[in-house]
Amino acid sequence: MSPPLRIGLAGLGTVGAGVIRLLEANAALVASRAGRPIRVTAVSARDRHRERGIDLAGLAWEDDAGRLATREDVDVVVELVGGADGPALTLARETLAAGRPLVTANKAMLAHHGVELATLSDEAGAPLRFEAAVAGGIPVIKGLREGAAANHLSSVHGILNGTCNYILTRMAADGLEFGPVLKDAQEHGFAEADPGFDIDGIDAAHKLAILASLAFGSRPDFASVAIEGIRGVALVDIREAARLGHEVRLVGRAERLGDSLAQSVAPCLVPRTHPLAAVTGPLNAVVVEGDFVGRLTFTGRGAGAGPTASAVVADLIAIARGEAGPAFSMPAARLAALPPAPPAARSGRFYLRLTVLDRPGVLAELTAALRDAGVSIESLVQPAPGPDDLALVVMVTHECAEPAARAAVAAMARLDSVTGAPLLMPILPAEG
Amino acid sequence: MSPPLRIGLAGLGTVGAGVIRLLEANAALVASRAGRPIRVTAVSARDRHRERGIDLAGLAWEDDAGRLATREDVDVVVELVGGADGPALTLARETLAAGRPLVTANKAMLAHHGVELATLSDEAGAPLRFEAAVAGGIPVIKGLREGAAANHLSSVHGILNGTCNYILTRMAADGLEFGPVLKDAQEHGFAEADPGFDIDGIDAAHKLAILASLAFGSRPDFASVAIEGIRGVALVDIREAARLGHEVRLVGRAERLGDSLAQSVAPCLVPRTHPLAAVTGPLNAVVVEGDFVGRLTFTGRGAGAGPTASAVVADLIAIARGEAGPAFSMPAARLAALPPAPPAARSGRFYLRLTVLDRPGVLAELTAALRDAGVSIESLVQPAPGPDDLALVVMVTHECAEPAARAAVAAMARLDSVTGAPLLMPILPAEG
Repeated sequence: MSPPLRIGLAGLGTVGAGVIRLLEANAALVASRAGRPIRVTAVSARDRHRERGIDLAGLAWEDDAGRLATREDVDVVVELVGGADGPALTLARETLAAGRPLVTANKAMLAHHGVELATLSDEAGAPLRFEAAVAGGIPVIKGLREGAAANHLSSVHGILNGTCNYILTRMAADGLEFGPVLKDAQEHGFAEADPGFDIDGIDAAHKLAILASLAFGSRPDFASVAIEGIRGVALVDIREAARLGHEVRLVGRAERLGDSLAQSVAPCLVPRTHPLAAVTGPLNAVVVEGDFVGRLTFTGRGAGAGPTASAVVADLIAIARGEAGPAFSMPAARLAALPPAPPAARSGRFYLRLTVLDRPGVLAELTAALRDAGVSIESLVQPAPGPDDLALVVMVTHECAEPAARAAVAAMARLDSVTGAPLLMPILPAEG
Repeated sequence: MSPPLRIGLAGLGTVGAGVIRLLEANAALVASRAGRPIRVTAVSARDRHRERGIDLAGLAWEDDAGRLATREDVDVVVELVGGADGPALTLARETLAAGRPLVTANKAMLAHHGVELATLSDEAGAPLRFEAAVAGGIPVIKGLREGAAANHLSSVHGILNGTCNYILTRMAADGLEFGPVLKDAQEHGFAEADPGFDIDGIDAAHKLAILASLAFGSRPDFASVAIEGIRGVALVDIREAARLGHEVRLVGRAERLGDSLAQSVAPCLVPRTHPLAAVTGPLNAVVVEGDFVGRLTFTGRGAGAGPTASAVVADLIAIARGEAGPAFSMPAARLAALPPAPPAARSGRFYLRLTVLDRPGVLAELTAALRDAGVSIESLVQPAPGPDDLALVVMVTHECAEPAARAAVAAMARLDSVTGAPLLMPILPAEG
C-alpha cells in the first residue's frame, strides 16, 4: 500500500474532533477505499488545552494555523476554522499557493472568495474540495459536480439550514409560536445562542450561492441572493399553509432564467407532494432539475460532527485516489458571470397574511391595493377573530410577477387599517 | 483542450439512442465538465436499419458488438446490449481485457459476473463503471462508492423497480386490483409485455446485489437474495396497510448482520414517516445508514432514456477526467465473501393476511398455529365480510424471527379452513 496521506487539520471544534474520531474509528475502511492510509499529523486550534474528548498525543501542534500550509509532514490541509475571512482565508490561500490540496467546510469563505480560491487551485494544480460546506453529510456537491454533470440544470432548490427546519417543523408539530420554539432549540443545542446567522437566512444563502455555481457553471454570487429569514413566520401561517395543503419551509432557490440567475432564500409554502415537504426536523435536502435526468432529491443530516466529518473524509479519500477536478466543476476562468435576474422575471403564486383592524371597508382597501398592483387573488380567508379589534386576512394570489406582489404588499402596509408587518411567501409549484 | 474521448456504443435501444442524443444536445457542457469532448465514433446493434430517431451518419457500424473492444478509433466502450451473458458479457470481457474502460447499464451481468469483470478491470487497469445499472439517473453508485465512502454502512434499502412502484401506488391511488393495473401499465409502457422480470422481483434483486457489494465491500451475491415479487399483493393489503399507517412498497434490503449478509427483495409495509413511503409512481429511491453520516436518501427517476443516459454520460465524464477507482470501491481481490445470514438472524414485525372459511373455530386454529410457532400477535382484524363463505383475517405480529413467522404461515396454509395463499409481508421500522 502507498504511504499515508498526511493531514494538517486546522480547527478542533465539534467537526474537527469528529474528523479525528472518524479517521481513527474507520481507519482500515478508509485506507481500503483510499488505497492508502489517511492520518492526521499536525493540528491547530485556538486553545491547546481545551478538553475535546480526543487524544492529540503524537500530533504536532501549531498555534498559527497558517503554518500547516507549509509543514513538511503535511500533504493536505483541512480547514475547519470557519469565518469568511481572517485566519481561515489566510490558511486557504497559503495552502493552495503552496500547491497543496485543501478540504474545507467553510461555506462563508467559499461564497465570498470562491472564485479567488478556485483560481488559485487551478493555477497550482492543487485540488479544492468542500463537500462538507453544503448540507453536511449529504454528498450533494458530488451529486451536482459529477452525478448530474451531463445535464443542463434549470433549478436547484434546497432546505439548507437545519436550525430553521427544526424550528418550523416543531412549530407545526407542537402548535407553538416562533419565540418559544427558538428558545427551546437553543436550550437543546439545535440553535446557537446568537441565532441570527441561521434564522435570518445568511447561512442558507452562503450554501445556495455555492450550489448555484456548481449547478450553472457560474461564479458564486452571494451578493445577489435575495435573503429573508423565518422570524416573520407565525403559527397561524403554518396552520393556514396546512389548510391549503402546504408546509412552510425555508427554501433556498436558484433558477436560471434566460441568461440570468435568480437566487433567493425565503420561507415558502411547499406543496405536500413536493419532496421538500417531507423533510422534517434538522434534516437538509436538495432538489435539482436536469434536462435529461429529471428531478433528483438528496436528503440527509445537514450538520453535526458525524455527518460533516463523513463529508470531509469523503473529500480526503477522493484526493488520496488522485481524483481532483476543478473546484466548481469547470476551470475558474471559465465560470460565467451570470447577471442577477431582474425581479420582474420572477413570478409565481404567493401567500399573503395581514393583520387588520376589524372594521368595515378594510377588505375594499386591500383589494383595491391588489387591483392597483395588477395582482388577482385566488382565495381570501379571515381565519379567526383576532385579539382586541384585530383580524387576520390570508390571501393566495394567482400567478403574478414578484414585484407586483411586493408592490401590493407595500401599499397595504401603508394603510391605516393594516397593523404590523404583512408576510409574503412564495408558493412553490408541485412540479418543476 | 485535449483530443476527444471516443466512444464505441453497443446497443441502440431507448437508452443507447438517449446517450447519443445527450452527447449531441449537451456537447459543450459535457466537454467543459470532462475537460475534453466526448464523441461516439462507432456503434453496434442488431438491426442497422431500424428507425431510432437519431442520425447515425458518420458513425462506424459493427454488426458484431465484440469488435468495438478492439477498434482503433474507440477509447471507451459503452455496453447497453443487456442480458447477463451472451454478447454483452463477451464484449465486456474483451473490452476490459484489451485494457479499455467499460461503461455499462447491465445490472444482470454485474450481479452474476461482477467479480470476474472487476478482477479483469483491476488487472488491466481499465475502469469499469456502471452508474446506470442501478436506479437510473440517481447517482447512487457514486453516493455509496464515494459519497459515503468513509462510513461503515449497516444497511441499504431501496425501491429499485419503477414498474412495481408504479403498480403499487396506482393500486393505492385508484383502488384497483393488481391485474387491471398491470394491464394498464403495459398499455402505457410502464410495464413490459413479459413483466415477470420486474414484478417477480428479479430486476430489483440484481440491483440490490450490486448495492450490497458497494455498501459492504463484499462480492456481489445475487444467488443469496431472497426474492418475492408483488403478484400476491391485493388491494385489501394496501388498504389494511394504510389503516395501520403504512404504504406497501417492493423493497430491496441488504443488511450486515454480524459477519453475514442478509439480502431480500419483498413487498413490505413501510411506515408513512419512512423516506421510502413518499416515493411514488415510477420513482426509485435508495436509503443507506452509515455510522457517521446517519441516514442518506437518494431519490429520482429509476429508468427511461433521459435519466439512464445521464448516468452513462456521468461515468464517461469521470473516465475522461481520469477518475478511475476500483469497480466496487475496493480491489476485487479484497472484496469479502460474506456468508448469507441464516434466516433465524432476521427478525422484525410482520403483516399476515389470510382468506378463511367463515365458520366458528377458525380463529382458534390460526392462533394455535401462531402459538406453536412461538409468534405472538399485536393485532388481529377481520376487515370485511368476503364473498361466498369466505372471510379475510389480517394480523400484525410482534417482533419475531422470520423463520417463526414463516412456520406459522406454513402451518396455517395447511389448515382446511384456510383457502388460497396467505401473504406475509415484513413491516419496516421507522428508524434504522
